Amino acid sequence: MSQVGKIRFGLVGGGEGAFIGPIHRMAAELDGQAELVCGAFSADPERARRSGVEQYQLPADRCYASYQAMLAGEQERPADKRMQFVIIATPNHLHFPMAQAALASGFAVVCDKPLCLSVQQAEELRDLQQRQHVPFAVTYNYSGYPMVRAARQLVAVGTLGSIRRVQCSYLQGWLAQAQPDNKQAQWRTDPQTAGGAGCFGDIGSHAEQLLSFVTGLSITRLCADLNTFVPDRALDDDGTVMLQFAGGAKGVLTASQIAVGCENDLSLAVYGERGSLEWRQAEANSLLVHELDQPLRVHRAGGPGSTAAVAPTRLPAGHPEGYIEALATLYQEFISELQGLGPGDYPGLEDGVRGMQFIEKVVESSTRGAQWVDVA
Amino acid sequence: MSQVGKIRFGLVGGGEGAFIGPIHRMAAELDGQAELVCGAFSADPERARRSGVEQYQLPADRCYASYQAMLAGEQERPADKRMQFVIIATPNHLHFPMAQAALASGFAVVCDKPLCLSVQQAEELRDLQQRQHVPFAVTYNYSGYPMVRAARQLVAVGTLGSIRRVQCSYLQGWLAQAQPDNKQAQWRTDPQTAGGAGCFGDIGSHAEQLLSFVTGLSITRLCADLNTFVPDRALDDDGTVMLQFAGGAKGVLTASQIAVGCENDLSLAVYGERGSLEWRQAEANSLLVHELDQPLRVHRAGGPGSTAAVAPTRLPAGHPEGYIEALATLYQEFISELQGLGPGDYPGLEDGVRGMQFIEKVVESSTRGAQWVDVA
Amino acid sequence: MSQVGKIRFGLVGGGEGAFIGPIHRMAAELDGQAELVCGAFSADPERARRSGVEQYQLPADRCYASYQAMLAGEQERPADKRMQFVIIATPNHLHFPMAQAALASGFAVVCDKPLCLSVQQAEELRDLQQRQHVPFAVTYNYSGYPMVRAARQLVAVGTLGSIRRVQCSYLQGWLAQAQPDNKQAQWRTDPQTAGGAGCFGDIGSHAEQLLSFVTGLSITRLCADLNTFVPDRALDDDGTVMLQFAGGAKGVLTASQIAVGCENDLSLAVYGERGSLEWRQAEANSLLVHELDQPLRVHRAGGPGSTAAVAPTRLPAGHPEGYIEALATLYQEFISELQGLGPGDYPGLEDGVRGMQFIEKVVESSTRGAQWVDVA
Amino acid sequence: MSQVGKIRFGLVGGGEGAFIGPIHRMAAELDGQAELVCGAFSADPERARRSGVEQYQLPADRCYASYQAMLAGEQERPADKRMQFVIIATPNHLHFPMAQAALASGFAVVCDKPLCLSVQQAEELRDLQQRQHVPFAVTYNYSGYPMVRAARQLVAVGTLGSIRRVQCSYLQGWLAQAQPDNKQAQWRTDPQTAGGAGCFGDIGSHAEQLLSFVTGLSITRLCADLNTFVPDRALDDDGTVMLQFAGGAKGVLTASQIAVGCENDLSLAVYGERGSLEWRQAEANSLLVHELDQPLRVHRAGGPGSTAAVAPTRLPAGHPEGYIEALATLYQEFISELQGLGPGDYPGLEDGVRGMQFIEKVVESSTRGAQWVDVA
Repeated sequence: MSQVGKIRFGLVGGGEGAFIGPIHRMAAELDGQAELVCGAFSADPERARRSGVEQYQLPADRCYASYQAMLAGEQERPADKRMQFVIIATPNHLHFPMAQAALASGFAVVCDKPLCLSVQQAEELRDLQQRQHVPFAVTYNYSGYPMVRAARQLVAVGTLGSIRRVQCSYLQGWLAQAQPDNKQAQWRTDPQTAGGAGCFGDIGSHAEQLLSFVTGLSITRLCADLNTFVPDRALDDDGTVMLQFAGGAKGVLTASQIAVGCENDLSLAVYGERGSLEWRQAEANSLLVHELDQPLRVHRAGGPGSTAAVAPTRLPAGHPEGYIEALATLYQEFISELQGLGPGDYPGLEDGVRGMQFIEKVVESSTRGAQWVDVA
Repeated sequence: MSQVGKIRFGLVGGGEGAFIGPIHRMAAELDGQAELVCGAFSADPERARRSGVEQYQLPADRCYASYQAMLAGEQERPADKRMQFVIIATPNHLHFPMAQAALASGFAVVCDKPLCLSVQQAEELRDLQQRQHVPFAVTYNYSGYPMVRAARQLVAVGTLGSIRRVQCSYLQGWLAQAQPDNKQAQWRTDPQTAGGAGCFGDIGSHAEQLLSFVTGLSITRLCADLNTFVPDRALDDDGTVMLQFAGGAKGVLTASQIAVGCENDLSLAVYGERGSLEWRQAEANSLLVHELDQPLRVHRAGGPGSTAAVAPTRLPAGHPEGYIEALATLYQEFISELQGLGPGDYPGLEDGVRGMQFIEKVVESSTRGAQWVDVA
Repeated sequence: MSQVGKIRFGLVGGGEGAFIGPIHRMAAELDGQAELVCGAFSADPERARRSGVEQYQLPADRCYASYQAMLAGEQERPADKRMQFVIIATPNHLHFPMAQAALASGFAVVCDKPLCLSVQQAEELRDLQQRQHVPFAVTYNYSGYPMVRAARQLVAVGTLGSIRRVQCSYLQGWLAQAQPDNKQAQWRTDPQTAGGAGCFGDIGSHAEQLLSFVTGLSITRLCADLNTFVPDRALDDDGTVMLQFAGGAKGVLTASQIAVGCENDLSLAVYGERGSLEWRQAEANSLLVHELDQPLRVHRAGGPGSTAAVAPTRLPAGHPEGYIEALATLYQEFISELQGLGPGDYPGLEDGVRGMQFIEKVVESSTRGAQWVDVA
Repeated sequence: MSQVGKIRFGLVGGGEGAFIGPIHRMAAELDGQAELVCGAFSADPERARRSGVEQYQLPADRCYASYQAMLAGEQERPADKRMQFVIIATPNHLHFPMAQAALASGFAVVCDKPLCLSVQQAEELRDLQQRQHVPFAVTYNYSGYPMVRAARQLVAVGTLGSIRRVQCSYLQGWLAQAQPDNKQAQWRTDPQTAGGAGCFGDIGSHAEQLLSFVTGLSITRLCADLNTFVPDRALDDDGTVMLQFAGGAKGVLTASQIAVGCENDLSLAVYGERGSLEWRQAEANSLLVHELDQPLRVHRAGGPGSTAAVAPTRLPAGHPEGYIEALATLYQEFISELQGLGPGDYPGLEDGVRGMQFIEKVVESSTRGAQWVDVA
């Protein structure tokens, strides 16, 4: 079935009506080095088969009725036909059992964020992965944007000097009202499927990873004030967290899903002794860079000013690449590792574990009346 | 000296090398209804005289050596020559004695912000003004921008519905390093002249007034984490405050003077049940307005969409008005009140008192380890 | 080889070092409905094979040494294995013979722009296609952007009223200096490979199609002043064209490849009696819409305000899609036609012919001293 | 009446309902070095008096019934009371007789643009001024913006290298419909009061001056296609002009008053061999600067990067100054010349004459069917 030399993967989730599963397929295949060969696209076996055959153009025998069946079925295939990694693109509560089973079966894993439902689960996955020696990526996709990587590089080479202030904000408005008929809304606002945090599990977690990815700083203490503005909603849909970092930097992280009019407004600003940078996902291909007593410089994806801004682009500057391309860059790094080309530069279980710690501490702080809590 | 019918005013501060004093003169005179007739421009008598004669083109006998001399000298003049109000544009620690003396002498007062050094002083001024029955403005100048007034109107008429989240940020970078030779920096970072807060007295106070002016909400609790990043600086130069409002809204206010690359980046975003708005001083003539399930609308100063966006403009849409014009609008309102045209729409001692309460509570919270404190 | 049900295609061009060929592959495959099965990736047989096997992961027997070999080889394959369309992504001078041969062999064709080297060639291809009854797309990719389609819809439903002024500008800076070592620059500035126009063949042609696509207006007369600023360059690298349209509208089209600092700055503005719109590729997911006496509205890809802005998106509003996704939308339309789902909405030979007429007339006008010429 | 040492001026025009006259008063007085002392505010004597006394707070004897009366009345006053310059802020057709009479009476003149109705008139004024040796400013106010002056400096010091392409566009939408009740519209669209050009006299003339001011280039040939889109309008309301400059640069100038949604959108872009710059009045305090192979730099009014961007500011960077301040900078330069402080840097009769040549040639070209014409 598969083309010569392409890395083969399976997909869990992504069936009819899914949002992110099909995007994972696009991103994983974008650079032409990998190919979807199988899937467990739905918990409903008939729907799973139909999605696989009609939506993904797969043969019926690679459309499995469950992830367990897929893992078992693929293990039985000859090594040169078998899937080589599995993408987990399901509601949060399924990440842990699926990732655990996939690792136990020896498959490399790409898992959506947040990694799972608790720090304990996260640490189990980390330990298991270390025993199994297979790659594991957590798709904090914003870390795949060229200008986010350029930002990380600028911090790393010291352009900003010692960091003083970090601001990260992730604002959406789509949950400003109850959304009883929206499947995506349902599982994200249900503790059974989303876990202990709503907005902070869904997007606050992205913000935490983005700021950690770019700055390399460790959060030592936080104070979180979470809110649930929409009546009868069980989980937070908004909140602010004040942050203190090792080394003395301070920060604030805001996340909201009730910010009417905001689409998917993720932004990061980092201020250091000698310089600062600012990035907004809405203008993902630009990075604003200030140095003391210099005019603002606008670094651009594919443009001059930063090697890191060029590496993960597919097109010359001025030909916008977006969300799918950013996710594809994480896959490119992951796949190149599977191809034996050395370790890939993608978020893994360290990010996954740290992300669960962040979520747990945010919920703990807020539950205790927005008191400061230490972060390990 | 003065032209027929113009309101006459004096200026305290604003001598050679001053920043904001000359701007007050420009703003007060911009609309042609008032005229500078005297001043106490410097604590150094020779400098005061020279500034008045050479910079402000005043006759020597209206250039006073002290504010006390000015108040006395003007009181002795005939009513149709005497100054009618005094502008206090000095370092913070002088606001209280000067305003107190001016009120006691029966003069109307325009005083720069923050009003004074303590809530107690602020309340004294408020009480004194109520006894003297003279107008008193506190120049929170950002409330003079047309689109800030349009924002207030949108909130007031219910376009946003009940407010849930308020974000206000005021970032500057000019104090990112020690500024031993900068007079403006010196007094703002010295507790003797600036009071108990540095950054939060200087610009955090503007942010508080802006969000209160637009939303009409009352802060009930706050949690502030202030920082002093530059070595040997005595006062805060940065900080974040989490806010809780009467009625359940939440907010975050950030102010910094060490945000390298930021010029004077004041921004406000307000999110309600049904709509939101966003304003940035850097693009002061635009107001972004979202309503549920509608495309973003950009209201413009002088343009369609809001009567409040037109009233305080002097030019058709597209001819930018700026900081001086915003301040001039406050003066226009103040002067029209002096002309007997009814109460003006400008910030007064209520804002001044509330501003001092905010500053005191922010400092108290931060000093106690960034604990939540109640705000009266 | 191919997956069940996917449409199979071949690629001419796109070998090592190519820019646009690999992008065509990504775009054609993005939505999971088509699959590259063969190619003639280079005029150098060894390079062609290596590109196919290593870059595209194809079996060696589907990596052909020439497009002629590919057409012949694929025709011999069984119908359910054979490629179903061919993508021509080569320098301009090869478009005509390749497209002609592909059509003659009965293959559907996707050809890059400009279609060929002359109006005569273009008309030959159009006539041949009409006889062969196979789909033919010309990849004017900017017409795949959601907000370009939303713009077309707004014009079509009359939001702007009768159109008065059209402005289209396409500015790049990468050819501001001679580029002797840049393969992409070489063929674009060589009349043997690029045809009679340089900048206007390469990007002026995009601008013409974009404005025609959105407005539906026909150019009746034009006056072009082309320039060659870089010494020893054989073709135009810059120019301005004044336009007159049937019905009385006027316009101006500017294209340049010597505009230092411009990346790929394509923009369109259309002004009508009652409204106007503005689109810039650099912010491809926004469309500015003005109506008389209304505030500016910003329509967004995937957002409210226009069905046409939602249809061609893969992600919710605020998750940026870019250049590859726009091109993929053209492929999606083309492939759905091949799947028998009715006529696709993509630029075809009518656009290709009109584009060649435009180029010829622009060159004619400029050569005659920037005189007005009639356009048929 | 006037303050010690202030320069005294009179104003012609600017009475009740006027737009630009009051703005001239604000701008002239902004920096505290000049004072309005008299005026001929309207052709209607009663209205003239009322405007002067009520709007401008002047004594009745300085409110003249005509400009002739004002010139005569002021000449009779003692030298230390007499006005020192006169501002002409009337419809275009009055500029010439008023300026001529003022010069003949020995007064310095500030005249709005366009200078008059013909090149011949313009040259007469120039000759007369040279005989009278008094300063004469033409208020092309956009040349007072700090970033326009910074742009001129960047060109002058060679940052862009030899200039290749110049684009200037001035778009408004307020005349997209007939405006029978709008006094500002009436005289601007009436050949008796506006002269031979409508849109190009009113705003095209600004665009010509702006590009000449910044680039220093001379137009040698032009080809203009003017339009009158609104029925029954007598003058152009829209048009495009292709430009050729001495030295080989090319350009395009667009002006429109029917561009629905455009407020006052003046923009300039200049592309040279080694760099480029872009300025937009809507973001007047920023200047975009590109140099080959460098990231975009954004120079800011009052910010680092250019001495010319700091000199004409009154406030630190980030405190927006706008249209009035830009005009005030021209007055500052003019007034400082009157104060004997050396020649001021403001547009004068050379700009005025060149502007009339431009208008005449544009009309001539368009009238001849948009043919190329030589510009002296």
